[in-house]
Amino acid sequence: MGLFTADIKTLDDLFVHTLQDIYYAENQITKALPTMISKATDPQLKQGFETHLAETRNQIKRLEQVFQMHGQTPKAVTCPAIDGIIKEANETAGEIADKAVLDAALLAAAQAVEHYEITRYGTLIAWARQLGRDDCAAVLRQNLDEEKSTDQKLTAMAESKVNARAA
Amino acid sequence: MGLFTADIKTLDDLFVHTLQDIYYAENQITKALPTMISKATDPQLKQGFETHLAETRNQIKRLEQVFQMHGQTPKAVTCPAIDGIIKEANETAGEIADKAVLDAALLAAAQAVEHYEITRYGTLIAWARQLGRDDCAAVLRQNLDEEKSTDQKLTAMAESKVNARAA
Repeated sequence: MGLFTADIKTLDDLFVHTLQDIYYAENQITKALPTMISKATDPQLKQGFETHLAETRNQIKRLEQVFQMHGQTPKAVTCPAIDGIIKEANETAGEIADKAVLDAALLAAAQAVEHYEITRYGTLIAWARQLGRDDCAAVLRQNLDEEKSTDQKLTAMAESKVNARAA
Repeated sequence: MGLFTADIKTLDDLFVHTLQDIYYAENQITKALPTMISKATDPQLKQGFETHLAETRNQIKRLEQVFQMHGQTPKAVTCPAIDGIIKEANETAGEIADKAVLDAALLAAAQAVEHYEITRYGTLIAWARQLGRDDCAAVLRQNLDEEKSTDQKLTAMAESKVNARAA
């Protein structure tokens, strides 16, 4: 959430502001994922990132739908949290030469991204319901379910082979 | 994970590096929580933050124990992710005058912090096990369990009253 945004007076304002925050975050993730795809060596991990890039583009469309349902024009506000998470992922990846260790680090970085999204969607859904917008909550729920599923797939991939190869 | 850290060559290096990252994060959280305590209005939320501050100090001691068990001196490396999450929390809080809306925002910010810790501890535990350090994994598990419990308590608080008061 950015420094130069409008004042937040109500829970509705906070909901819209956080929607703008995750809209920015999802867009930043579509920019970060191609680098992660190109750096990943394990074919399943690479494929997982590619699938998630397609999913993220669809999640952005769902967010635009929620903006419209709520009478708002889609807009992004800078989100220092996702910027920090992506910066950290890039810095760490830049320090690793071994491809198997890099895969383990990329996978962990992707899970940090997923968890940021999981917490924000969880909050947005609770606020939407509180505001009587169960319709918005239902659309946001689809994004949340995808993020949780991606996180679980990454955990399974880490435990089944990526960590073992890195060790 | 910082820009000026040593190169990461093995999964063991990556484990230690990520331990330094979460050590930095937990220390930053002990600096951020007093502000959140002073800004929170709801007595249960304020008390929850106070309890978590005490827990976080204990978690730092557990991390120092893990460093020692693994033959390392406790050390922190800058973690842009937690810096971004805390920066975002402060910026958003600074835009909100209404105390009930501020409580909802502070609670959501705390959950973003918890989720960052949950993902990092999950990763560290998996790597510790892979490295044959079940002893380190067991200590890290105590921190993970506390973070998950705090996140669940925050969700219950949000849904039972904080969001309703903000609406």
